[in-house]
Amino acid sequence: MAYIVKKMITRRFVSVCSSNRANNTRRFTSATLQTSVACLLRQKLDSSEPGDLQADNEVVLNGYIHSIRNQKTRSFAAIGDGSCLQSLQALLTPAQAKGWDSLSFGTAVTVRGSWKKSLNPTGQTHELHVSKLDVVAATDSNFPLQKKYQTPEYLRTIPHLRMRTPFNTTLLRLRSEVIAVITKKLSEMSFIQTHTPIITSSDCEGAGEVFQIGLASKHKSSSGQEFFRSPKYLTVSSQLHLEALAQAVGKVWTLSPAFRAEKSDTSRHLSEFYMLEAEINFADSMYDVMKLIQEILLPVVQTLYSSQIGDEILSRGPLGEKDTKRRWDGISSPWKCITYTDAIKILKSCTHIFDHEPKFGLNLQAEHERYLTNEVGVTSDRASPLFVTHFPRAIKPFYMLPSESNDDGLETVECFDVLVPDLGEMAGGSLREYRLEPLIKSMFMNELIPSNSPSDQDLRDLKWYVDLRKWGCVPHGGFGLGFDRLLGFLAGVANIREMVTFPRWVGRCDC
Amino acid sequence: MAYIVKKMITRRFVSVCSSNRANNTRRFTSATLQTSVACLLRQKLDSSEPGDLQADNEVVLNGYIHSIRNQKTRSFAAIGDGSCLQSLQALLTPAQAKGWDSLSFGTAVTVRGSWKKSLNPTGQTHELHVSKLDVVAATDSNFPLQKKYQTPEYLRTIPHLRMRTPFNTTLLRLRSEVIAVITKKLSEMSFIQTHTPIITSSDCEGAGEVFQIGLASKHKSSSGQEFFRSPKYLTVSSQLHLEALAQAVGKVWTLSPAFRAEKSDTSRHLSEFYMLEAEINFADSMYDVMKLIQEILLPVVQTLYSSQIGDEILSRGPLGEKDTKRRWDGISSPWKCITYTDAIKILKSCTHIFDHEPKFGLNLQAEHERYLTNEVGVTSDRASPLFVTHFPRAIKPFYMLPSESNDDGLETVECFDVLVPDLGEMAGGSLREYRLEPLIKSMFMNELIPSNSPSDQDLRDLKWYVDLRKWGCVPHGGFGLGFDRLLGFLAGVANIREMVTFPRWVGRCDC
Repeated sequence: MAYIVKKMITRRFVSVCSSNRANNTRRFTSATLQTSVACLLRQKLDSSEPGDLQADNEVVLNGYIHSIRNQKTRSFAAIGDGSCLQSLQALLTPAQAKGWDSLSFGTAVTVRGSWKKSLNPTGQTHELHVSKLDVVAATDSNFPLQKKYQTPEYLRTIPHLRMRTPFNTTLLRLRSEVIAVITKKLSEMSFIQTHTPIITSSDCEGAGEVFQIGLASKHKSSSGQEFFRSPKYLTVSSQLHLEALAQAVGKVWTLSPAFRAEKSDTSRHLSEFYMLEAEINFADSMYDVMKLIQEILLPVVQTLYSSQIGDEILSRGPLGEKDTKRRWDGISSPWKCITYTDAIKILKSCTHIFDHEPKFGLNLQAEHERYLTNEVGVTSDRASPLFVTHFPRAIKPFYMLPSESNDDGLETVECFDVLVPDLGEMAGGSLREYRLEPLIKSMFMNELIPSNSPSDQDLRDLKWYVDLRKWGCVPHGGFGLGFDRLLGFLAGVANIREMVTFPRWVGRCDC
Repeated sequence: MAYIVKKMITRRFVSVCSSNRANNTRRFTSATLQTSVACLLRQKLDSSEPGDLQADNEVVLNGYIHSIRNQKTRSFAAIGDGSCLQSLQALLTPAQAKGWDSLSFGTAVTVRGSWKKSLNPTGQTHELHVSKLDVVAATDSNFPLQKKYQTPEYLRTIPHLRMRTPFNTTLLRLRSEVIAVITKKLSEMSFIQTHTPIITSSDCEGAGEVFQIGLASKHKSSSGQEFFRSPKYLTVSSQLHLEALAQAVGKVWTLSPAFRAEKSDTSRHLSEFYMLEAEINFADSMYDVMKLIQEILLPVVQTLYSSQIGDEILSRGPLGEKDTKRRWDGISSPWKCITYTDAIKILKSCTHIFDHEPKFGLNLQAEHERYLTNEVGVTSDRASPLFVTHFPRAIKPFYMLPSESNDDGLETVECFDVLVPDLGEMAGGSLREYRLEPLIKSMFMNELIPSNSPSDQDLRDLKWYVDLRKWGCVPHGGFGLGFDRLLGFLAGVANIREMVTFPRWVGRCDC
């Protein structure tokens, strides 16, 4: 037991350097052991004899008052610190509790005491018997957060504060945990994590909805164009650069911000978001890319099922335990896979009335994706992501590899989308056109260049990308996964604006 | 042995989905085991009896020809794949080698064969006896990369190709490995990894050298200002946002792009770079922050000393083995620490002639930093980073916490810089002003607001940041570390442009 206690409690405050200033008075702690609410609550679960905590293992906890309840002979304070969803019950003497008028919701405190079995357990089996309480920072009644239900719309107006609410700390910890798990998994799979540029010359998706870079108005005389000699944009995807890097080290990935200047005011779109993108050199089947997405999500689900964060999502997530598990189990199960052609056939033959009629050769609308996800991807016990493959060439970007055989005379490309409930398209990927001449032809067909035999001048910002095809370019492919959408899917949060700490969309860039 | 082989060789190509397209013909491999040059070369080291490789463990390797040498009865091809610095020797029959006219530097090949002890070892003790060779993609004599020394300046003109040169693959793998190690370490220390916004309203450092966001010229009618309702910039630091998040979960970090529109054309500056930033809530000593930087770099050095990447840097890094080890050992040893006041005294009393005279109250110039690093931080066997602390308040940003006691009557702040050889300032950190009124006063002194009692209007884009001080704001602090500079310091590469795949600086944004 003593071993566990030592392992779980971190020594944080160690002085470091020889300067005579190093030994300034410390307010929070020095020799004593500092802990967290999560550590203490875990201890309760780990041990049948929590009374083992020795008197000399007195703990120090920094946190915030969530609520306070005064009785005649004692007071109960609920203290939270963001390390877990729950708050911890601290037992105060009337003197400690009343000595501080400002002990209210949001007050920052440092408490010292011992973690003991509750004599009269109501909610928690253990409580912190406080020997010393310090108010580190007060709050007041104007505090915009309150211990009551506050709507997501209201909280979204105060993004700098809303992350202090308990379930939002769960979402912060979820993001951190998923990054850590995926970083480990891809490293084990010999993928090299890279940093691709944010400021770019090219508009990869060709949608034209890009932010352009300029200089701040202090420098009125010079524009961004002059700074870099030509117009530059915020990247919409790292794919083109990842292709170059995959040629160097085989398998690469990045978790990078991406930007779209779309004027979409929906629950699924942001102007700034994170994309997990990977690229595999020497890949001759799109199914290798599809398999990769499934492989890296498996340990994520395993972690959720065996961690505190997973428990918190199951117990307090907006979707409830059963439906959240259906999603996690859906990720672990084989994902269904249909072609675009089959998807259109299903949509055309069903009895559902769509606002937009499904048509061969047109893109799937959100309502179509929703129908397919629910009718094909989801079963009673599994809400799996759904692959839709082989879209028509005409509605996809220039860099995708044409399929060798086509359905129903439709010219298709080796690509796929991954659809999930609520959030729609979670990922997309393809094999890339790796041959020089067909790539040029495709660029011409997409009106990116004026002729089939372009000069360097004609190729402009894509010259380097075309160059990649000239020397030892092999079949390759990759995917991009909307990281915020993935987190929303895992947490059961339908609105992506709740998943991003400081969300940006058209008209909104608070803080 | 068989176990080791199975563990090291990855099965990559597994079909995934039920579509009838899944079983297209595969060019590269299917049932056989695919491997990498690094795997095969490691095997040689791991085993004293490499002949154990069974015939049924035939391997498949995808890679690029680095060189070819024809003899009468056989040909030797050096094949590299970016998995390590070295290439692997493959033994071809004359028929295999001559059957392909295009087998030259940069040709992409897939070879099948067995890894056997070399009968007549010259360089490598083992070689790949090729049973089948396929040219996957040809190259030609216009290939800008050649197997000879090419200057960094030339390679910088072809960033999309230069990463294919062997030492550049080491640098790519170094970045990946360091990210993985730091992610693991900070996760173990209960730090939460976050994604802070790139598009922001505020210019954290107050330097005014920021890029502004607009819309691409297709949308001439609407500016970026209209998209978000007010001017927006690319972030120069995540610090302000990290402070908000630290209030929620205690200890946070991010590895995020940051941007400066400085017209600096030096080996140490880029317009776009990655910063590792961390923030600790409830921190009352700057030395806790300083300690943290040292703690997260320790496992990085341990990994370098025990990994293939470390070996590659020691054997082929520009600094040579001895001086590279001095840096790594310097990181593991205690770092020296002097105050700004002492630094100026040292600079004033030394015999060195500076272009800029060192003066109390002025910032340190690059030449001053260089002198301090070499004279104070570096010893004969250690090239440690050097802390310089307690700079004058007047030359530091508004958010830093004033020191309680000051040297020689100089008003200082609780801050530090970390200086290293070649790359100069690698990191900087401080405690933050956590009290509302002193923060407002500091903003006024820094001319960010028109008076000591500002209206919400006056506070503009910093209103939310000031807000953080109103409710339960406790002492806190953090640091920002230039990630590309760190990697350059570890690899012994003095020019940061070699550390970033697609570097951007004034006038340069190729690819």
